[in-house]
Amino acid sequence: MPHFIHRFPVNWVDTDGLAVVHFSNYLRYFEKTEEEFYRSAGGESSLMRERGIAFPRVEVKCTYTYPCRYGDIVQTEIWLDRLTDRSVRINFIVKNVSEDRVSAEGYAVLVCVETAGWKAAVIPDEVREIFEKLR
Amino acid sequence: MPHFIHRFPVNWVDTDGLAVVHFSNYLRYFEKTEEEFYRSAGGESSLMRERGIAFPRVEVKCTYTYPCRYGDIVQTEIWLDRLTDRSVRINFIVKNVSEDRVSAEGYAVLVCVETAGWKAAVIPDEVREIFEKLR
Amino acid sequence: MPHFIHRFPVNWVDTDGLAVVHFSNYLRYFEKTEEEFYRSAGGESSLMRERGIAFPRVEVKCTYTYPCRYGDIVQTEIWLDRLTDRSVRINFIVKNVSEDRVSAEGYAVLVCVETAGWKAAVIPDEVREIFEKLR
Amino acid sequence: MPHFIHRFPVNWVDTDGLAVVHFSNYLRYFEKTEEEFYRSAGGESSLMRERGIAFPRVEVKCTYTYPCRYGDIVQTEIWLDRLTDRSVRINFIVKNVSEDRVSAEGYAVLVCVETAGWKAAVIPDEVREIFEKLR
Repeated sequence: MPHFIHRFPVNWVDTDGLAVVHFSNYLRYFEKTEEEFYRSAGGESSLMRERGIAFPRVEVKCTYTYPCRYGDIVQTEIWLDRLTDRSVRINFIVKNVSEDRVSAEGYAVLVCVETAGWKAAVIPDEVREIFEKLR
Repeated sequence: MPHFIHRFPVNWVDTDGLAVVHFSNYLRYFEKTEEEFYRSAGGESSLMRERGIAFPRVEVKCTYTYPCRYGDIVQTEIWLDRLTDRSVRINFIVKNVSEDRVSAEGYAVLVCVETAGWKAAVIPDEVREIFEKLR
Repeated sequence: MPHFIHRFPVNWVDTDGLAVVHFSNYLRYFEKTEEEFYRSAGGESSLMRERGIAFPRVEVKCTYTYPCRYGDIVQTEIWLDRLTDRSVRINFIVKNVSEDRVSAEGYAVLVCVETAGWKAAVIPDEVREIFEKLR
Repeated sequence: MPHFIHRFPVNWVDTDGLAVVHFSNYLRYFEKTEEEFYRSAGGESSLMRERGIAFPRVEVKCTYTYPCRYGDIVQTEIWLDRLTDRSVRINFIVKNVSEDRVSAEGYAVLVCVETAGWKAAVIPDEVREIFEKLR
């Protein structure tokens, strides 16, 4: 399978005063999907902790095409767009399954840093292999 | 002055699909007010970091009486209810100034812990003095 | 089954600067569990929309006994404590399954209101039956 | 003055498990600054409500260059980049004043919609004038 798919319902707290999901929460849905992927792929999170590295975002972009509302089922999909020695670019799409529409799409660029000192670092091979599974 | 007062507008992101502030955000308003107080009282935050302690909540209660909406001006008030060797209870009230109504009130009990090990600790005198200013 | 159980992992965005779940998010976990229950019980949400009613919280209480961290699996349990003509009290517990500890417990009191006018209302029988399933 | 400036401290709840502001919150800081501007410029929010329009984002981009931590003072700046009949592009920058660094910059494209029906609409002149003040 070329990419990772996740499905969950919109929670009430995600909506704003227009009864639609707040724009910032699509980016949180994206991150949540990454987390689900790492978990399924063998725990990048514990690897990260052992090695003292993290993957902060240095760039995100998102376009919005259709709202999601409380109770709508959301399907998120992520896939690897580019992997270099020190960075990874992941694309994402959020679909409103209940309405059969694309809600949002975009990408994030993540870089590898040492958490002690917050310095750029080379992505360790073991973590690299995990990202490769997203292709 | 017996307690600390803070004022700020309701942000859009704080509201939910009924166009009112989500119930969990009143508790965040309360914490935000504490932070403003600590800042004004001479920086409990840096004290905490130096000493390796933190004040996690062990109990919170909140009653809700009137909604706040986007753009409403909120006034929060906090005061010391009880201070022991190891814990502090702070009361709070959130007023909807724009509507001249009380929106929420409650309290939180905080305990002192050493962040290394997450163990209960005695509140240092310097921090104690800061809490005393809330009486 | 006397109550409703839900399980999910802690997301990164739920944690705060001490790398533990922010206290306000346990209350969001509670609400999320309610939503999952309503969905499983036949859609209180659409019932609510049709009838123009909502269930704002008028009281919440939570005690905290053990932290949850990123990646920990959380199990939430909710059950009906009291049901009157106009209000319902639901209890909850959040367990840190990964650490085999109780993290938080508490309750919320919800009242029925007409969303037009935000006035107290009697809980409709159909919705009542849904709450009864939580006993 | 060519653009609008806002200043506020980082709140604890904005930070994540690495003790830095979560990437999604820079976008919320941006929106919060817009709100402050609208308020200062004479209340786009009430105008919007009267006219039944809203300005959902259709595109956001953000690059991140330096973290903000709890207690850091943040300065946000926003300015008008482009104004058409139906959309507006606003740029923003988030500075970490305490560390004298640029933390994040980006933009958002907002379109005018009628809230009843969620249909694209022409920006009313009165609201247009408010956006012009951001030049």
